[in-house]
Amino acid sequence: MTAASQLASVLDHIDKDFDNSLERLFTLLRIKSISADSAFDADCKKAADHLAADIATIGFEANVLPTEGHPAIIGKSDVAKSNGAHVLFYGHYDVQPVDPLNLWNRPPFDPVVTKHADGRDIIVARGAEDDKGQLMTFVEACRAWKSVTGSLPIDVTILIEGEEEIGSKHFGPFLEKHKNDLKADFALVCDTSMWDQNTPAITTALRGLVYEEVIVKAANRDLHSGIFGGGAQNPIRVLTRILGGIHDDNGRVTIPGFYDGVKDLPADIRAQWEKLNLTPDAFLKPIGLSIPAGETDRLLIEQVSSRPTADINGIVGGYTGEGSKTVIPAQASAKISFRLVEGQDPAKIRKAFRDYVTARVPADCKVEFLDHAGAPAIALDWGMKPLAAAKRALTDEWGRDALLIGSGASIPIVADFKRTLGLDTVLIGFGLDDDNIHSPNEKYDLKSFHKGIRSWARILAAFADAPR
Amino acid sequence: MTAASQLASVLDHIDKDFDNSLERLFTLLRIKSISADSAFDADCKKAADHLAADIATIGFEANVLPTEGHPAIIGKSDVAKSNGAHVLFYGHYDVQPVDPLNLWNRPPFDPVVTKHADGRDIIVARGAEDDKGQLMTFVEACRAWKSVTGSLPIDVTILIEGEEEIGSKHFGPFLEKHKNDLKADFALVCDTSMWDQNTPAITTALRGLVYEEVIVKAANRDLHSGIFGGGAQNPIRVLTRILGGIHDDNGRVTIPGFYDGVKDLPADIRAQWEKLNLTPDAFLKPIGLSIPAGETDRLLIEQVSSRPTADINGIVGGYTGEGSKTVIPAQASAKISFRLVEGQDPAKIRKAFRDYVTARVPADCKVEFLDHAGAPAIALDWGMKPLAAAKRALTDEWGRDALLIGSGASIPIVADFKRTLGLDTVLIGFGLDDDNIHSPNEKYDLKSFHKGIRSWARILAAFADAPR
Repeated sequence: MTAASQLASVLDHIDKDFDNSLERLFTLLRIKSISADSAFDADCKKAADHLAADIATIGFEANVLPTEGHPAIIGKSDVAKSNGAHVLFYGHYDVQPVDPLNLWNRPPFDPVVTKHADGRDIIVARGAEDDKGQLMTFVEACRAWKSVTGSLPIDVTILIEGEEEIGSKHFGPFLEKHKNDLKADFALVCDTSMWDQNTPAITTALRGLVYEEVIVKAANRDLHSGIFGGGAQNPIRVLTRILGGIHDDNGRVTIPGFYDGVKDLPADIRAQWEKLNLTPDAFLKPIGLSIPAGETDRLLIEQVSSRPTADINGIVGGYTGEGSKTVIPAQASAKISFRLVEGQDPAKIRKAFRDYVTARVPADCKVEFLDHAGAPAIALDWGMKPLAAAKRALTDEWGRDALLIGSGASIPIVADFKRTLGLDTVLIGFGLDDDNIHSPNEKYDLKSFHKGIRSWARILAAFADAPR
Repeated sequence: MTAASQLASVLDHIDKDFDNSLERLFTLLRIKSISADSAFDADCKKAADHLAADIATIGFEANVLPTEGHPAIIGKSDVAKSNGAHVLFYGHYDVQPVDPLNLWNRPPFDPVVTKHADGRDIIVARGAEDDKGQLMTFVEACRAWKSVTGSLPIDVTILIEGEEEIGSKHFGPFLEKHKNDLKADFALVCDTSMWDQNTPAITTALRGLVYEEVIVKAANRDLHSGIFGGGAQNPIRVLTRILGGIHDDNGRVTIPGFYDGVKDLPADIRAQWEKLNLTPDAFLKPIGLSIPAGETDRLLIEQVSSRPTADINGIVGGYTGEGSKTVIPAQASAKISFRLVEGQDPAKIRKAFRDYVTARVPADCKVEFLDHAGAPAIALDWGMKPLAAAKRALTDEWGRDALLIGSGASIPIVADFKRTLGLDTVLIGFGLDDDNIHSPNEKYDLKSFHKGIRSWARILAAFADAPR
């Protein structure tokens, strides 16, 4: 029996069992697995244990394995299929911090289905989309296949990590150590988005990331600005002056060498992208903005997907409480990240940034840097075989052509899979731009979850029956 | 009997009772009267009640009186003196917040006498100097006079407020309301400094202050920097770009009109100040710096006392916790203060700053301002009569000439006294530049406290016997 012939029953089961799928997602969403904050280390462990136990119930031989940081999970499906197709599915159970908590409409770890302002049904919780929702979308598709047919249509290895939100620092060595357990034909990565609510997409290009923290230190203690103001250097002044200069009036990054190796879009791609017509009205208006902030001579779609960026993700120094305090602080710090595109070397960008800052710090101040992450951009092969099968399955489910798109986000694991395991990756996800991931009131459309599970069920069937 | 003939007995009593003076100061220092943080409102009330009760024990008719904010105290000495001299003494019981708490060597509200690194005995606690220590230095001098002679040598009204550290917002109306109870010949204000450990000083010029908070708002929620980075405006970028531009390469403030009305030092004063030889080695080295940060064409002593400044006292936006978060925040904010000199109008400076910022905020972002304080600079009359008596008394106690100096700090109450009560002010204090006021490990030299009490006892006698 071909997978295709069993698919209708599987899809039917998905529809009937959907309330249970939702409850299983909620159970995972209730675990506060914030990887960035060591106060939640035990919750991260709990999320890993829970997921391993859950996928064991659908026939995976699952193990929670230590890393230098939060643990990872490897689960292998139980039956080696005669067709031999074998995919490595990747997701992560860790989530972003929830601050500012006061901007959430409800507790971030108390998931609920509610109505979006425009009437859509949405699941609201930290991790609802990124990545617990996306991850469970795939797991539930596997569960349906197992329930209906007793096995999966292809061999699946599930790999789940717990440090994606903090740069997957310890995951490279983990992959290296376990590479014999992670053999597959290609990888599937799920934390990407659809083009819009009704149009599925496969992501074939990703920006890279360099994430730095810079700490400027001036006096050996906090000073009174009346006594010392004017004479003593203020590290916030130094830091704002330096960071305030990294963009020019045209939105271009001024760090010398930043654009080295960056190529313009091929004319045909640019023509296609112009047709997609990503307008400020469509993209920026929903978030309350109207003026593209990137390089003024680039399309908005280029600014957010094919051009490199510099963003200050956080800054703090001096007195930030209620009221006023006339202090000149001893130090100030900022977190800065760069989204990279093909042709940029993360190590060179990091060095260029550090050189730029260091050259501008007064001689009697000190500067320190912390490296929080670094990964090159990814450009996948648009002709890769599994793409065609996945594209067809998505088109069948959603009733319109699945698009091949570039994403502005960074998923460093894709480069690691190629380098360590020799695997190409197919990136498919059901997120939307308005999911508020990393923000208060993160959500995942109920439709994304439901049709996403159905999509993965179809994709597994398509992989099983595709010529290899 | 003249006050001068009784002085020796009073000074002797001060020496013998000094341990008790210290214990009374400690009792006040243990009260957590942080005015900026509403969590400490009850402590502010407690400090006011405690001080009123304490000065009542030395014959003051003392009342705790409400303001729109924290209460104030008016205490009037009990006997109208035949000589008719009458001073209004001003101090404040409120203190600055204590953060960052981890930089304190011990709990900030558990005062102790300990050794400075260079061997000096010091009192360490929040408020040890500013202003509880300085205030009690005066109160203890009154107590000694009362104990030894049964009364004070002149009439004294003590006025203590609880909102100095938050800009004395409600004190103007309070003065207006109680002005008939605050009549005097002149005012004494105590929260100023000596020239150095061994050289007393009277402050005759003070910088003014404009304190602003600026909040830049961009998107209607926090955004993921991968999805929106490059296209969506980042309020930290906007804020750092604006604030990073308020000083030029020569340390000059670039806000149009900022220096309007600012006069150069008269040649003779500049010559005197050059002789004082305030070097970077003497002034900046103790705080770990070496390069004056102000206008490059000005003396260091000008930079910190006679030139206006702009300092960013606090900045915050985005993710500031441990690790990294790829967020573009919805807003960022900063606290900025300007020290003003004679000739600058606080209202004009505030407007110039707001105009400067507003003109630089992108059209789709919003900016809000909060007014935390505003007061003009003060230049006192160097020929004012009580100065000579006070100068002589200080010189007698310390064995070297008391200096007349300018201070970089702002004491807005001095302008209020002139405007509302018609009083000139004599500013005398025993602080030192290394007292860490507004900073962790605030201290007050034990010698400042002891010889300060003796100094005030001498000054009261000098005022009593001075020709009026």
